[in-house]
Amino acid sequence: MIEKLIVKNNKKIVMLVVDGLGGVPYIEGKTELEYAKKENIDNLAKKSMLGLIEPVFAGITPGSGPAHLSLFGYNPIEYEIKRGILEALGIGMELKDEDIAIRGNFATIKDNKIIDRRAGRISTEESYKLVDLLSENIKKIDDVEIFWGKGIEHRFVIVLRGEGLGDNLNDTDPKVENLEPLELIPKDELSKKTAYILNKIIKTSSEILSSQEKANYILLRGISKMPDIPKFYKRYHMKALALANYPMYKGLCKMLGMDTPELGMEFENLIKYYLEQYENYDFIYIHYKETDKKGEDGDFFGKVREIEKIDSFIPKILSKDPDVFILTGDHSTPSALKSHSWHPVPILIYAKSGIFNDENAKFDERSCLRGYLGIRKSYEVFYIILSLAERLEKYGA
Amino acid sequence: MIEKLIVKNNKKIVMLVVDGLGGVPYIEGKTELEYAKKENIDNLAKKSMLGLIEPVFAGITPGSGPAHLSLFGYNPIEYEIKRGILEALGIGMELKDEDIAIRGNFATIKDNKIIDRRAGRISTEESYKLVDLLSENIKKIDDVEIFWGKGIEHRFVIVLRGEGLGDNLNDTDPKVENLEPLELIPKDELSKKTAYILNKIIKTSSEILSSQEKANYILLRGISKMPDIPKFYKRYHMKALALANYPMYKGLCKMLGMDTPELGMEFENLIKYYLEQYENYDFIYIHYKETDKKGEDGDFFGKVREIEKIDSFIPKILSKDPDVFILTGDHSTPSALKSHSWHPVPILIYAKSGIFNDENAKFDERSCLRGYLGIRKSYEVFYIILSLAERLEKYGA
Repeated sequence: MIEKLIVKNNKKIVMLVVDGLGGVPYIEGKTELEYAKKENIDNLAKKSMLGLIEPVFAGITPGSGPAHLSLFGYNPIEYEIKRGILEALGIGMELKDEDIAIRGNFATIKDNKIIDRRAGRISTEESYKLVDLLSENIKKIDDVEIFWGKGIEHRFVIVLRGEGLGDNLNDTDPKVENLEPLELIPKDELSKKTAYILNKIIKTSSEILSSQEKANYILLRGISKMPDIPKFYKRYHMKALALANYPMYKGLCKMLGMDTPELGMEFENLIKYYLEQYENYDFIYIHYKETDKKGEDGDFFGKVREIEKIDSFIPKILSKDPDVFILTGDHSTPSALKSHSWHPVPILIYAKSGIFNDENAKFDERSCLRGYLGIRKSYEVFYIILSLAERLEKYGA
Repeated sequence: MIEKLIVKNNKKIVMLVVDGLGGVPYIEGKTELEYAKKENIDNLAKKSMLGLIEPVFAGITPGSGPAHLSLFGYNPIEYEIKRGILEALGIGMELKDEDIAIRGNFATIKDNKIIDRRAGRISTEESYKLVDLLSENIKKIDDVEIFWGKGIEHRFVIVLRGEGLGDNLNDTDPKVENLEPLELIPKDELSKKTAYILNKIIKTSSEILSSQEKANYILLRGISKMPDIPKFYKRYHMKALALANYPMYKGLCKMLGMDTPELGMEFENLIKYYLEQYENYDFIYIHYKETDKKGEDGDFFGKVREIEKIDSFIPKILSKDPDVFILTGDHSTPSALKSHSWHPVPILIYAKSGIFNDENAKFDERSCLRGYLGIRKSYEVFYIILSLAERLEKYGA
């Protein structure tokens, strides 16, 4: 439906995504947002529409991939990003539309039985060396290029690039130990070639790794192709810039066809680039990662400080006077729970007209619960954002 | 989607369903929940998440069957329980997966025209006698066993048990009087056998009932098979106990594969069994019927007293310290309306972590409207319950 209603104009939308923003009551019965001193944000909240957003579905804790798709107006259940692709994006591998990505594990095999699915959780350092060794020796099989990506501990990623490769294949990981690795069984014609290439990779890897004590075998999982997701520009007719420090977020935005400049690991550099490039884009997404990390660590006060730090950037971001400004998170990461959670995420939408605001509001979970937007799916709220930017036509006459 | 995310653990979920719990303002402008003195529940409400749940869809008044399915996380529109099956469960008939259940009416026929579709609403006593007479004489046709169930006034139930029976058949009830009964027209191959058996039953019944003045014919409606609903354990990997006094609720839970002990008509016995068996289950559902009955009777103060009675059981239920405790209803039965209604039902969810509570809340419709859960579908809230019990994995990485 949405594609048919899109109109172009020169209104600008800026979306600041503070990763893992939402919390639950913890210290003094407060959430991190309730505890933080964030004058700029709270002042803005009094002039904005508030609400709570759910990335996927009630009760479902999302990963960052589906949560971000939802923020950009894509229903993440309709547009599923499979595991191999997510993993490749997560470690910053460049992917093309027809590539096949696979999660790999180093494992220990003996008498053709997997006796340790994680090769004793070998160190990341050791794992890096082995991936280097494999990538030097296995670069191409027939017409298929092979790329190796490094992960934490026993994990790595393989990307296949070539003509006519399918992804309709099972995992080789038997999931429990003391079983033989599973045979790759292609479920359609195109996947036969993929199975043939992967079997060669498994065989050659085993030879190369045969002298290893622990990591003498590779198990393959989540064999997958890029999902068939309409590109952001094609869907919304907005030129989009993605400003993020971490590979996962850049990778996902690149998949949607957004511009994703390489700006290093400093958030300040994102803001600097934003100020320089503002005029060249219709939609600018800015990602702040540190809040999520502190949440995952269970560091309540650390997350509070990160929220306060983000508060200090608000005047600079607003100095460009965007037509619509959104401050929200991709999902909640309450430090009380030390992990992503299902809890709906606070959202603030400022726009120049069409806003219901509350002069007494602050920007936190409980204020947002009473906000004008109610509790909604993230991808639904993107339509409201488009409408506030006057980028949606009337539906029906 | 949900099946893929389920994880097993030892967290316990207890759900107390107070039938027809919700009301609308009536005496002194209050609902039954607002009027009742219920200290235990209100104290718990201050430590819990509140909200309102809709069993089926906005504006739709549900029967108890779909309303309960929704409470257990099944979308009742996706998993429809047809009328014959509901009727059989409602009068406590034991059903097997392949059985065909049919609602029957005693009717008056003259010159092959139905002149009274309800046989003058014959008394329940008279009806029971006639069902006994039929069940003595019609027990088996070919390889199909036939079971008869007694209902109120002119109503009864027939269950067919045998190989290869379909349920794709129309009703014989012409719906208006002075018409001939409708011919059974099977719409698929399997239903031909069902039609053949039912035609024999109709013919033999007519002969047996020919001397009756009013109830000299049987009309058949809602010919149906058990729905193809995934069993509760298969779907959620939780061992479930259903504690209910009334057949409808036990029948529905048995259909989902829950343990449904026969504990008589005293609610106290359910609680006694709960206290004894608590350790043996992951999910325990407890049903309280009397509130719904008082609502149906339009007895506001009676319903208030039943709510107060339930309040007195709360400490015993909580004495087991469940990880997640839910207090809600299957649907609303406002005594002001003397019937089930569409109004969303108050829900209280207590859990050991991840809760947004309101120290000033009470457990009633208006407090729940301001609660953290908002207004949601009952089956969606089940996902939140699973998440609070840490029984759902993250969706995507």
